[in-house]
Amino acid sequence: MSAHVDKETLIVSIAAINHEIGTIQDMKAIRDIVRDKDEAVLIHTDACDAFGRIPLDMKNLDVDLASFSSHKVYGPKGVGALYVREGIKIEPIIYGQLSTQKLWPGVENVPGIMGFSKAVEVIHRNFRENVLNMSDLRDRLTSGILNSVDHTMLNGPLGDERAPDNVNISFLYCEGEALTVELSLNGIYVSSGSACTSRVLEPSHVLLAIGRRYEEAHGSLLMKITPFHTIADIEYVLDVLPGVVKRIRSISPIKPVKEVR
Amino acid sequence: MSAHVDKETLIVSIAAINHEIGTIQDMKAIRDIVRDKDEAVLIHTDACDAFGRIPLDMKNLDVDLASFSSHKVYGPKGVGALYVREGIKIEPIIYGQLSTQKLWPGVENVPGIMGFSKAVEVIHRNFRENVLNMSDLRDRLTSGILNSVDHTMLNGPLGDERAPDNVNISFLYCEGEALTVELSLNGIYVSSGSACTSRVLEPSHVLLAIGRRYEEAHGSLLMKITPFHTIADIEYVLDVLPGVVKRIRSISPIKPVKEVR
Repeated sequence: MSAHVDKETLIVSIAAINHEIGTIQDMKAIRDIVRDKDEAVLIHTDACDAFGRIPLDMKNLDVDLASFSSHKVYGPKGVGALYVREGIKIEPIIYGQLSTQKLWPGVENVPGIMGFSKAVEVIHRNFRENVLNMSDLRDRLTSGILNSVDHTMLNGPLGDERAPDNVNISFLYCEGEALTVELSLNGIYVSSGSACTSRVLEPSHVLLAIGRRYEEAHGSLLMKITPFHTIADIEYVLDVLPGVVKRIRSISPIKPVKEVR
Repeated sequence: MSAHVDKETLIVSIAAINHEIGTIQDMKAIRDIVRDKDEAVLIHTDACDAFGRIPLDMKNLDVDLASFSSHKVYGPKGVGALYVREGIKIEPIIYGQLSTQKLWPGVENVPGIMGFSKAVEVIHRNFRENVLNMSDLRDRLTSGILNSVDHTMLNGPLGDERAPDNVNISFLYCEGEALTVELSLNGIYVSSGSACTSRVLEPSHVLLAIGRRYEEAHGSLLMKITPFHTIADIEYVLDVLPGVVKRIRSISPIKPVKEVR
């Protein structure tokens, strides 16, 4: 990574937790590598998927900028927050009428901001308990799927290096899109590929980057655990999913090569 | 106005109704003037204050772009709409991950959009009745204030040239800010200057542009009528306002020159 930072580098931006495969980045190590190379390089972290999942002490994290999103902590869509370290000056990219509105013009989304604020409060109540509970459900769901459905592989790390809410599994010989549709008919709402690229039907660049083949990336599902989920929810998914995968595989044109007996 | 359009002009942008003084612009005349000069110049209208107040037939209006805001039609803050005439190509100013999100990146504020949609539906129920009712309340409030409080002047036009919801009056020998504070203690919520510049305590550039002196612009109040207001509300304001103005004037350092008797 150090090799990518040179005199042309203005800013290094890394998600504290990868949105797709849940990898918890060692932001302090990244910060040190970057600052060792050039102290003037700014460090930004997209903390949207980390906020409420891992402890985030901004003083300790010592980045220059950090982004947060309301809906990622179950607040209303349409609002977010940007942490700007004291002394860092940034210019707006959209200008409005008011000199008092320093970074963003227009009327503030007050109900959204209040909802975001409340969501932050709620998600940090029983934070440790929630995280332990989510990690437990994550592991139950992961091992349950890997054990009950063949031709599957977990994407991203295991255990403490992984976000407590993230399960991302590739189902070979399946279309991820088809799985999401059939699961939704059963009241199970998950994303194929990355949620963000799901509408363009292209496999996740993150999965391709970690070495997954096109078809492995294509048949991936991203499942998110929330503090509001229970063991019963996980058991329901484990009950329904194998049959859904079987059905979708039975109509898929891509089949495993038959083993010679 | 024609003199301001030359070969360097890319776009002409005019509010269909002036946000501060309620002037209804003759958008068709403006469009014709601009197109006579140069057919390639794009015409944008900020229709935020016009939507729900005057009939807006986009085909007939024949502008290239128009902006709408949810909270201006009593929908949730944080969402708006941009009308783009078929064939007009515009480039985003912020880019995201998705090729499907053509103009604005990120997760859509779905509840906000649904609320905006509902607000548009509600404000267009009984549209004619609402507009007639608002115009009636506007005229009662305007003449009531001008008749009961001396040293006052209406800003902007009268009657059909004015938005049905807009009352903007200058109170000489008064600080607009002080009036808003004292009125709010009586449950009456209005803006001083323009609402948008009220936090910077500078007089409205619109009022200065129509020839008001600094002190006339400074003592102005913008009062908005909604379809939810009643005659009783107007009577309450007319009951409270004269006393408030009298009190604020009594402590104001700016006094009318005493007449020689």
